Amino acid sequence: MAGFAPLPQPPYYAVIFASQRGTGDKGYKNMAESMLEIAAQQPGFLGVETARGESGFGITVSYWENEAAIAAWKAEFRHRVAQQQGKAVWYEDYIIRVAKVERAYAKG
Amino acid sequence: MAGFAPLPQPPYYAVIFASQRGTGDKGYKNMAESMLEIAAQQPGFLGVETARGESGFGITVSYWENEAAIAAWKAEFRHRVAQQQGKAVWYEDYIIRVAKVERAYAKG
Repeated sequence: MAGFAPLPQPPYYAVIFASQRGTGDKGYKNMAESMLEIAAQQPGFLGVETARGESGFGITVSYWENEAAIAAWKAEFRHRVAQQQGKAVWYEDYIIRVAKVERAYAKG
Repeated sequence: MAGFAPLPQPPYYAVIFASQRGTGDKGYKNMAESMLEIAAQQPGFLGVETARGESGFGITVSYWENEAAIAAWKAEFRHRVAQQQGKAVWYEDYIIRVAKVERAYAKG
């Protein structure tokens, strides 16, 4: 699930998740891959883009049709377990921003 | 300029720039650093977060007070030169999304 998310016509929503990983994997990689797979099966999911550099700082942006889809994903049981682990174990810090995409264009 | 952007009270704007680098530096690293420095001096600039993985896929999100600040930065002369280079030389592909941040929260 690497690379670009599809480019539907706006408006749609973006969840911008910026995070700083701590040291050691501690089950992170498997869980992160599972979460991407499970997210992709949720109603209203449009796509996801993710990048993390050597410093452990990363940005994952997931795209959703509407706010209701974001709320449902936030409340999804397996995702909630992952959120707890993220807060307690995997991330030194994170910021989540929810934004409405108003326009978009590609290199073309 | 690594790590998290500040967390002002929404609303504000995000420019989500997802890109796939081609091979070879070709002046990219110097220019990317210069652009971050110049962007930080623009009126309405709030902050920037950036991450790029080993595959060359990266996400840079810059945050701005309003749409006018984004338009002014897009038109800035040195930035326009960089945009041309980016399109012609540095990026195999990219997608730019402009979004209005409606809510935000940190690990806390």
